[in-house]
Amino acid sequence: MYDVVIIGSGPAGLSASIYAKRAGLKAVTLEQNPMSGGQVLNTYEVDNYPGLPGIGGFDLGVKFREHADNLACEFKEASALAVKKEEPEGFTVVTTQEEIKARTVLAAMGATHAKLNIPGEEEFAGMGVSYCATCDGAFFKGKVTAVIGGGDVAVEDAIFLSRGCQKVYLIHRRDELRAAAVLQREVMALTNVEILWDTVAERIEGEEQVQVLCVKNVKTGKKEKILVDGVFVAVGITPASDILKEVAEFDAKGYLLAGEDCALSTPGIFAAGDVRQKKLRQVVTAVADGANAITSILEYLQNRKE
Amino acid sequence: MYDVVIIGSGPAGLSASIYAKRAGLKAVTLEQNPMSGGQVLNTYEVDNYPGLPGIGGFDLGVKFREHADNLACEFKEASALAVKKEEPEGFTVVTTQEEIKARTVLAAMGATHAKLNIPGEEEFAGMGVSYCATCDGAFFKGKVTAVIGGGDVAVEDAIFLSRGCQKVYLIHRRDELRAAAVLQREVMALTNVEILWDTVAERIEGEEQVQVLCVKNVKTGKKEKILVDGVFVAVGITPASDILKEVAEFDAKGYLLAGEDCALSTPGIFAAGDVRQKKLRQVVTAVADGANAITSILEYLQNRKE
Repeated sequence: MYDVVIIGSGPAGLSASIYAKRAGLKAVTLEQNPMSGGQVLNTYEVDNYPGLPGIGGFDLGVKFREHADNLACEFKEASALAVKKEEPEGFTVVTTQEEIKARTVLAAMGATHAKLNIPGEEEFAGMGVSYCATCDGAFFKGKVTAVIGGGDVAVEDAIFLSRGCQKVYLIHRRDELRAAAVLQREVMALTNVEILWDTVAERIEGEEQVQVLCVKNVKTGKKEKILVDGVFVAVGITPASDILKEVAEFDAKGYLLAGEDCALSTPGIFAAGDVRQKKLRQVVTAVADGANAITSILEYLQNRKE
Repeated sequence: MYDVVIIGSGPAGLSASIYAKRAGLKAVTLEQNPMSGGQVLNTYEVDNYPGLPGIGGFDLGVKFREHADNLACEFKEASALAVKKEEPEGFTVVTTQEEIKARTVLAAMGATHAKLNIPGEEEFAGMGVSYCATCDGAFFKGKVTAVIGGGDVAVEDAIFLSRGCQKVYLIHRRDELRAAAVLQREVMALTNVEILWDTVAERIEGEEQVQVLCVKNVKTGKKEKILVDGVFVAVGITPASDILKEVAEFDAKGYLLAGEDCALSTPGIFAAGDVRQKKLRQVVTAVADGANAITSILEYLQNRKE
């Protein structure tokens, strides 16, 4: 019987592993992929994790995992399939390998960004194609970028990028934005943001880095090539929270409902990192979640003991 | 006119500097000491900042500052003396050097731990004397430690340490604890925690590391030497929030009242790191605060523009 099963070993799960080990908890961390690190593994460069300036995302993932390995944290390579509540207490985590029993569950499965699924997108991922303006926008100072999407995140990204970029195209397949009215007013007031309505991205081209975005107007059928240094894809993000659907609380988008203390209202379940409902999804906020979650788990286990 | 004045350059302030710069804000960070890093500078070893296992606290502070310097963040060596609200908007930060005007203020002044002020305390700081069990407890696995204090933090520290230490002395100058009843019950149920009542610490001795704690019973006058590997001082922590007393909201202990978004209810004032009211004060939570605060400041500035 483990004190906690940590599901996922991105920055949130690895931080939790480290804090759990140092607190003397019997913990195991599950990772479905051969490598730990989560989304950060596919990030070309991370320049906003203090102390490791300009580190490659892959290297950062490796360093995080090595830190946990140094402390002899326990890992299992397995995919969690379901979490079941047991009576009188605890949980069974059903994985592709075995069933694991634990007094608490920490959900750190992260989230995935929806893809455009167009030629060049995968090829230039991290080489001009990004899914996070807060993370990567600073690399495009003085350059020309395009944001694809029409929701809150896309418009926020365009506003964020407009502060540093020479020009930002906001490319939306429909003739109106879905974003909140206040965001729409803001983005339309910006002189260096051009909105291309009724337009879809068809192909991304370049040499080593992104250079050209091929777009098509869906009403007129007219195709165009625009010169850009970066393409920010903001067409949706999906938290990987499915396996908790029987036992936990979600918001409408599928994020697990927990505050800064990472505790869900269901006793014994905790959430850390991108799978949690919160404002800013970054490496720094993920590692903080890992620590806060373990602190809450320690309190929970102590209270149960009485 | 700056977009934001960041007061303090510990982990929270430096993370905020990095995020502010990358977001294109005109920001300046004030540090009253010759070195950035805050409390971490006086920490012997930090082993819970993911990616930099077992790093010296001083080195971590230097790395954080270098990261900000790489990005050409602006710093001023000056002590903030007061923050004044201006009409119709913005603030003046009065420093030992000059008056600085800014649209927002980010308080990242940190906190200071009360000292015992006994011989050996300063000498062995980081060499067995610690002010943070969550930070340093794991270094004392299988060892004997003493916690000095009788409040919630002292008792929580004793409980936390009891998980890994062979034995923990809880040393309190009075004949009853101030800590919450639930914590008292918990600590008294632990077989490897011994409470020394009516007892004060008089001196810490050792060679390179702490070896002996000299204590005195204040009722009987009897002196004793106990063999310990570590001394955890938990006699109070004071947030460095004084300079905001005219303009901000505090809790009873002086922490600035702000949630995970780091926004105070006073428009334009934000708080990050140990000076903020929160549960867990760690490097990871400080760097998250820095990022969350800048995100909130960006939103605030955008909303004011309309």
